[in-house]
Amino acid sequence: MAEPALDGLIDALRRLPGVGLKSAQRLAFHLLQHDREGARRLARALEDAVTRMRHCERCHTFTEGPVCATCLDESRDARLLCVVETPADQAALERSGSYRGLYFVLMGRISPIDGIGAAEIGAQALMDRAADGVVQEVILATSFTAEGEVTAHALAQALRARGLEVTRLARGVPAGSELEHVDLGTIAHALVDRR
Amino acid sequence: MAEPALDGLIDALRRLPGVGLKSAQRLAFHLLQHDREGARRLARALEDAVTRMRHCERCHTFTEGPVCATCLDESRDARLLCVVETPADQAALERSGSYRGLYFVLMGRISPIDGIGAAEIGAQALMDRAADGVVQEVILATSFTAEGEVTAHALAQALRARGLEVTRLARGVPAGSELEHVDLGTIAHALVDRR
Repeated sequence: MAEPALDGLIDALRRLPGVGLKSAQRLAFHLLQHDREGARRLARALEDAVTRMRHCERCHTFTEGPVCATCLDESRDARLLCVVETPADQAALERSGSYRGLYFVLMGRISPIDGIGAAEIGAQALMDRAADGVVQEVILATSFTAEGEVTAHALAQALRARGLEVTRLARGVPAGSELEHVDLGTIAHALVDRR
Repeated sequence: MAEPALDGLIDALRRLPGVGLKSAQRLAFHLLQHDREGARRLARALEDAVTRMRHCERCHTFTEGPVCATCLDESRDARLLCVVETPADQAALERSGSYRGLYFVLMGRISPIDGIGAAEIGAQALMDRAADGVVQEVILATSFTAEGEVTAHALAQALRARGLEVTRLARGVPAGSELEHVDLGTIAHALVDRR
């Protein structure tokens, strides 16, 4: 259609993960036709977030200050440090209401195929953080995928070499599941890790 | 997490159609972690599009000028006017390479349940446009859904009352389909409309 402002918007939307040409067109048309105020608000929110959000010096999650609110919360148990891949994983653990320690957010996971090694996920920063003399146990809560397991394995070795106690989230049957609908790998792990 | 700039971005992304809380979080984290330049570019593109894009005075599609490039294209056959619901539908027809007439874009369809009647889709503007003395045939290419059919029916009546020839896109078996996998309604229409 050779409309540069429209084409530019569709191109910029396509760059989002999971958004193809048709979705980008639909989003652009929707915003222009039905929600120009939403489009302006999104533009301001993007600019604002990119300008103000940086990484917490202690746990690497996104924060506006030098150190995030969770790391500054003195009511948390500083002897426990839980390692997660993303802020979304951290949010899921927080929602579970069953953890009161601190976090370290890798902001990724080891993925040799993508050229992401221990250095890229801040393994050295984690070692320094865990060696503060207060942390007693590091809980590895990376994903139970091939890459998450490789990440957990590499970090566990390095942390144990520094004399730290390292644990991993339990694998097993999800709450509310009927056994017949659970995949066999999960059942096998649940049997091995039975208690 | 109580990070206003991050929460604001997630809220603004959630306002997009088809984006829930988890998708919005994923998009926000992706942009902040991996594509801050893409986020800035999207912010500029949104602002730009909202500021510059308006509706073509002749066909109602999105354009930066008063009249869009398609309507200004003198090589097109001005005797044919194709009515579509959205610019995306117009783009699909253009990609087919089998239409060289002009368009009228309703920017919606009649949907009584949403309070969208003939006035909301610019039916009067379409009547004025089609009565320019040049248009000889109006091709209704609204969707073959309940709302698209209602829209086509209402517009056809009004256009025919003004003495215009009105046609509808053919219904039938999609190219490349095996009959056994085509739904029965489509087969029934293909039989009725056989040629």
